Amino acid sequence: MDDRVRRHAETLVDDCTDVRPGDAVLVKAPKEAEDLVVALYERLGEVGAHPTLQWGSARASRAYDRAMDADDYETKPHELAAMEASDVVFLIRGGGNAFETSDVPPEKSQAASRAYGPILQERLGKRWVITQHPTAAGAQRAEMSTEAYADFIYDAIDKDWAAQREFQSQLVDILDPAEEVRVVSGDTTDVTMSVAGMDAANDWGTKNMPAGEVFTCPLPDSVEGEVLFDKPLVRQGKEITNARLKFEGGEVVDFAADQHEDALEAILNTDAGSRRLGELGVGMNRDIDRFTYNVLFDEKMGDTVHMAVGGAIAECVPEGQPFNKSATHVDMIVDMSEDSYIEVDGEVVQRNGTFTFEDGFEEA
Amino acid sequence: MDDRVRRHAETLVDDCTDVRPGDAVLVKAPKEAEDLVVALYERLGEVGAHPTLQWGSARASRAYDRAMDADDYETKPHELAAMEASDVVFLIRGGGNAFETSDVPPEKSQAASRAYGPILQERLGKRWVITQHPTAAGAQRAEMSTEAYADFIYDAIDKDWAAQREFQSQLVDILDPAEEVRVVSGDTTDVTMSVAGMDAANDWGTKNMPAGEVFTCPLPDSVEGEVLFDKPLVRQGKEITNARLKFEGGEVVDFAADQHEDALEAILNTDAGSRRLGELGVGMNRDIDRFTYNVLFDEKMGDTVHMAVGGAIAECVPEGQPFNKSATHVDMIVDMSEDSYIEVDGEVVQRNGTFTFEDGFEEA
Repeated sequence: MDDRVRRHAETLVDDCTDVRPGDAVLVKAPKEAEDLVVALYERLGEVGAHPTLQWGSARASRAYDRAMDADDYETKPHELAAMEASDVVFLIRGGGNAFETSDVPPEKSQAASRAYGPILQERLGKRWVITQHPTAAGAQRAEMSTEAYADFIYDAIDKDWAAQREFQSQLVDILDPAEEVRVVSGDTTDVTMSVAGMDAANDWGTKNMPAGEVFTCPLPDSVEGEVLFDKPLVRQGKEITNARLKFEGGEVVDFAADQHEDALEAILNTDAGSRRLGELGVGMNRDIDRFTYNVLFDEKMGDTVHMAVGGAIAECVPEGQPFNKSATHVDMIVDMSEDSYIEVDGEVVQRNGTFTFEDGFEEA
Repeated sequence: MDDRVRRHAETLVDDCTDVRPGDAVLVKAPKEAEDLVVALYERLGEVGAHPTLQWGSARASRAYDRAMDADDYETKPHELAAMEASDVVFLIRGGGNAFETSDVPPEKSQAASRAYGPILQERLGKRWVITQHPTAAGAQRAEMSTEAYADFIYDAIDKDWAAQREFQSQLVDILDPAEEVRVVSGDTTDVTMSVAGMDAANDWGTKNMPAGEVFTCPLPDSVEGEVLFDKPLVRQGKEITNARLKFEGGEVVDFAADQHEDALEAILNTDAGSRRLGELGVGMNRDIDRFTYNVLFDEKMGDTVHMAVGGAIAECVPEGQPFNKSATHVDMIVDMSEDSYIEVDGEVVQRNGTFTFEDGFEEA
């Protein structure tokens, strides 16, 4: 076995979730990720934890969803019971075909999502992490060879997370007390939002592996201006390109896209909260140096900013602050590497992807 | 998809377990059986049941068991909770390598088995079925081509179960009221046991698919004599050949094997009940006409008898009768095709594989 797979497993067990002897551990993985599952099980045995293995088969889900009546979905009692009795959850991505569920009718995907809600809520109260195993299908999505894709994945994961945490904390120190953030890129993006009273979070290796972003939540009514998301967004198997949103009083009042504008409209029409921003994030993992059609990586990419329409993130919203509620949370990415800057309370903190606290930062 | 896979799934859902709308269904399968899982999920969607999918990865189990301390095994609370909340359980066999766990120390396999005991007990109270998906590895084990092996599997499964039930009921009518059964083969097997007061069961398609045996439970203290199990037994990836057991007062007082005697010893040492018989079965599925190193098929083979050390089977043991309790249940097979007979209350009912109620039965 590739030694990087073992190190990946150790990172997940020891660092991301701090698994302890006797913990009930739930692992969910596609079959293509078996090498990582084997390494994870080995490490869990060394620790003395008690794992069970759920199989995420997109082929089986597709067959079931297509045959099932949308009215008959219910929260699965045995899946909920297993989640309730778990201490730690590992969610491993890396299936065989990213488009496997592309011919499931959307109303069934929505019904399945709603029925899963209580299990998701239960999971969010555990120690959990989402991660990725490199597969040929993932490499194809990224338009890379399988070997080069594996190198890319492990470069992003196998790093000094204590150092990364320190690096990112410099942006947390700027965003946490901030009142107003402005993001400008070319003549297509100029958006301003208030983050007053919100907490900035440092994503350094719990919950997501790879980690590598700093994120906060805008006040739902505060967003003003226009954004061109120049990185593609894939939703229900549809690639939405050059999505453009115009905000007034926090709400999306106009939108457009070069391709699949209808899919963008469907996202915005999910509910009231899906027309407002739930997150502003800044990618800071410089080992993620290319777009791979995988939001777990793309949103952490250096020189990018992402904004999510939909639900806010609990750890950023203190008691008493307004919380944007929505059944959806869709991250969309802006390339900040050229002709771009981030301004916090009137001061530029990043220009063309380089922060003020990094070498090479240029004054205007 | 091979249409026989869809018919197999329909048999499992409609006939073996009678899945109803709203049932919580637990499916456990190896990744090599994904085609059958997909067909099963499609049928479960049509019925309106709620399935979850556990992945049986022998590679992961091996890695875990080798790393785990034998003293640290515990019943997994989340696996038990999921089982408790299930109505129906499908256990699908058909992995990639039957020897995957061959280098797990036996004391760890035993510890894992004991910890699994309460989950097994819970499962036995559900509607459940064990079945097989044909794989290249299974074909290799059977020393057959993959195509011929698939034909063999589906011949054994895709049949007129009502007619088979009728055929087998003739032996049920003999064994059910019987007091004493004697099994003799060559000069190596001569064993006598009491089945007085026990119920004989007709295995025609619930619990096992393929089905095709009639079985009962001996009184735990009644077994006397010696048995040579001349068909190999594979356990924890070890092929135990020519296992020999000597019984006194129902208990195994001596044992031997030509190969992997230690694995046989480990089985017998699981607990007190694993030194006594929990089952006597007679194979009656004549479409299973060859030994394929797969007990689910081998024990149903015409011209064979099997005995299991370990736990008795609830449906054969009426209230008030002694029940042999054990965390394990290991079937071992005797070839009855030559120089052999089964005697019930002093009357021969089968000679050299042919029953008294079949054409070709020969008096001594």
